[in-house]
Amino acid sequence: MLHMPINHPPPIVTLLTDFGEHDGYVGAMKGVILSILPHVKLVDISHQILSQDIQQASTVLAGVYQYYPPHTVHLVIVDPGVGGTRQPIAVETPSGIFVAPDNGVLTPVYEQEESWRAVKLDRPAYWLAQPSHTFHGRDIFSPVAAHLAGGISLSQIGSDCQQVTRLQQPRLALLPGAVQGEVVRIDRFGNALTNIRHLRWVDDDMIEFIPMDAKTEKTGSMQFKADTVQVTFGWHTLKGIYQTYSHVSVGQAVALIGSGGELEISVNRGSAREKLALSVGVQVKLLLNH
Amino acid sequence: MLHMPINHPPPIVTLLTDFGEHDGYVGAMKGVILSILPHVKLVDISHQILSQDIQQASTVLAGVYQYYPPHTVHLVIVDPGVGGTRQPIAVETPSGIFVAPDNGVLTPVYEQEESWRAVKLDRPAYWLAQPSHTFHGRDIFSPVAAHLAGGISLSQIGSDCQQVTRLQQPRLALLPGAVQGEVVRIDRFGNALTNIRHLRWVDDDMIEFIPMDAKTEKTGSMQFKADTVQVTFGWHTLKGIYQTYSHVSVGQAVALIGSGGELEISVNRGSAREKLALSVGVQVKLLLNH
Amino acid sequence: MLHMPINHPPPIVTLLTDFGEHDGYVGAMKGVILSILPHVKLVDISHQILSQDIQQASTVLAGVYQYYPPHTVHLVIVDPGVGGTRQPIAVETPSGIFVAPDNGVLTPVYEQEESWRAVKLDRPAYWLAQPSHTFHGRDIFSPVAAHLAGGISLSQIGSDCQQVTRLQQPRLALLPGAVQGEVVRIDRFGNALTNIRHLRWVDDDMIEFIPMDAKTEKTGSMQFKADTVQVTFGWHTLKGIYQTYSHVSVGQAVALIGSGGELEISVNRGSAREKLALSVGVQVKLLLNH
Repeated sequence: MLHMPINHPPPIVTLLTDFGEHDGYVGAMKGVILSILPHVKLVDISHQILSQDIQQASTVLAGVYQYYPPHTVHLVIVDPGVGGTRQPIAVETPSGIFVAPDNGVLTPVYEQEESWRAVKLDRPAYWLAQPSHTFHGRDIFSPVAAHLAGGISLSQIGSDCQQVTRLQQPRLALLPGAVQGEVVRIDRFGNALTNIRHLRWVDDDMIEFIPMDAKTEKTGSMQFKADTVQVTFGWHTLKGIYQTYSHVSVGQAVALIGSGGELEISVNRGSAREKLALSVGVQVKLLLNH
Repeated sequence: MLHMPINHPPPIVTLLTDFGEHDGYVGAMKGVILSILPHVKLVDISHQILSQDIQQASTVLAGVYQYYPPHTVHLVIVDPGVGGTRQPIAVETPSGIFVAPDNGVLTPVYEQEESWRAVKLDRPAYWLAQPSHTFHGRDIFSPVAAHLAGGISLSQIGSDCQQVTRLQQPRLALLPGAVQGEVVRIDRFGNALTNIRHLRWVDDDMIEFIPMDAKTEKTGSMQFKADTVQVTFGWHTLKGIYQTYSHVSVGQAVALIGSGGELEISVNRGSAREKLALSVGVQVKLLLNH
Repeated sequence: MLHMPINHPPPIVTLLTDFGEHDGYVGAMKGVILSILPHVKLVDISHQILSQDIQQASTVLAGVYQYYPPHTVHLVIVDPGVGGTRQPIAVETPSGIFVAPDNGVLTPVYEQEESWRAVKLDRPAYWLAQPSHTFHGRDIFSPVAAHLAGGISLSQIGSDCQQVTRLQQPRLALLPGAVQGEVVRIDRFGNALTNIRHLRWVDDDMIEFIPMDAKTEKTGSMQFKADTVQVTFGWHTLKGIYQTYSHVSVGQAVALIGSGGELEISVNRGSAREKLALSVGVQVKLLLNH
């Protein structure tokens, strides 16, 4: 059991899994962590990731982890290959520490962070004794997360990992006067979030845009008047980007900048998924200075 | 980062939202709060409020907040008008502090509490820098809740708010020898909870009833024998109010006093919603001394 | 309010209920506990137990509690008989303390623990004042759990309970060269978990099996080569038990040892429930040395 100095900020471990909440799997993981590090703060991000959907988990993670203190350990267990050849890893960054199977679920971390260092978890001294082959979340990842949150260093917990797995991410196409991306997430409210990111209100009229995707180096930003652009998808064209859902009447569609700085398509007090037949993968074009 | 004196009871922030648990929105809010107030205890009330259902959130809140220590901060984010003209507010009462959009979701607080004081949240120093227009839960409400839980006063966090928004609540009709109300909530078990409230067992036979609704001043109580009343709704008549579900056989309907002191209609080990076709809005009459 | 000595490991109360997360019932319980024991760590095991399904709750509990520190208090509220004749009880074991209605939900605790002691909760001094007849989870069980987690002894909280209720558990049939059991749980991923338990990998080829069920004394173990056995159910026969899902191709069925040491039937990256029409109660036979 690890003791913490008094008044030290308490260690935090967040949990993001596809385990659901019916089976007690998450409960077992929390018990393992609390047994090693009794003063830990456990925070659920989500356990409702679609079963074995690595892409969805990585998208949720991308929008959340940067709001946590940098000493936070993020445990991300969507692990269809458990017990197989995929490595368990831990990744340290200036914004947080991540513990996950090396199946690509940490892709946004590699893309968003300026620096990071990975180790493979190959030191059974930091695992439960006699780990199962089917539940590494409980037997390997949870105890490792507890030890890292308690102050054990990355070098102690595993040996250097030179190469990590990345997911193929949908790319932006930068066209003359236009940017083409796609819907990458639909949220509970039916809002469609796209991979056209790095948008920001400069003032009430002007938007700054950094036309960058994961593969592109940052090439400087551009600015445009918000009401001069068009957003097109399927048969729809929306004129202008606006600040709030209520800019349009109830039931009408609106393009805006989402809370993650991405182009978002919504219906005021309704569902863009239902009203506009939007789903993940639908292509969306942003026409500038139209 | 706010430090807490040792052995001080830890600050508590509860969260009640319609965000669901798939998107990471709640996870981002918790990160914001923990970054400001590392020793906070975060407690989920529910994130399963129906999308944008202010009435349901207020009904859930009404039955929960009084069980928390009075220094608790309750964060209530059901916010269909985010970014529009609705004010973000904080409300202090003898039973707790509430942070929410001023859209009526706090109506039961105004009705149940003897005194309260509201401010509008107009001090960006207590928000995240560059708040989005679409996620005030993360960018305004969460940091304000953390600061209030950490001991910042209501006066520091915003300026006085003279008028607050209230929901229209279904009213009781007090008739000669009868009270007419309606079903206001169906719970997970299919129990129907009504707005005929302030019922209480005096002993094993007698019930005390305070015929009061939000608009009515308390006019004194009445008492009646539990087995002399009738409860009617639709084509159904139930004779008597009983203490427990198991007073009737499995599958039979029973009227009782719910855990919030309200008239409740249930089916023993079954669902009153399914068996009796009850839903929110169905009229229910309590016939006294019949 | 109970104060805790500094640096004492914080008290833990876990919650396992069928209350769902829509109604605020769990939120009210947590408020009651925090009001009595402000430094408590509250951990949700699950609130998604099927309504009034005592068997499911006991199965989830069986796989989780042993991962918690022994001073943990486990609050298990699936209570269809609330307010009736069933006793509220607390049970102390070397692995944890349990607070629950005496309706059989703690059966695995009695079976897995070497010793235990039960009391009936008959001391209203440790309850909320004026407990309701319909929500003992909030009014009796939660305050008792908080007091126990805070250090009050079992003897203070209630008087000795000589007899407890046990669920009928499906039994193993030990046949010549075979063991017959059944599916007792299907998890979120569609994996089928059986009551053929106490399996363990000795090395990469050999499995140890202790042919014991709850009624059987431990009679010594047997060992067998993993690839020599057969697992049969319905029209299906699986040859061998393997270590990982990925031993077989995607979409293929595999028998393995589950994370609780039980015989598990799975489909790699798929659902055994859907592909193999497995459900709770289906008979499964393990043919040894076939």
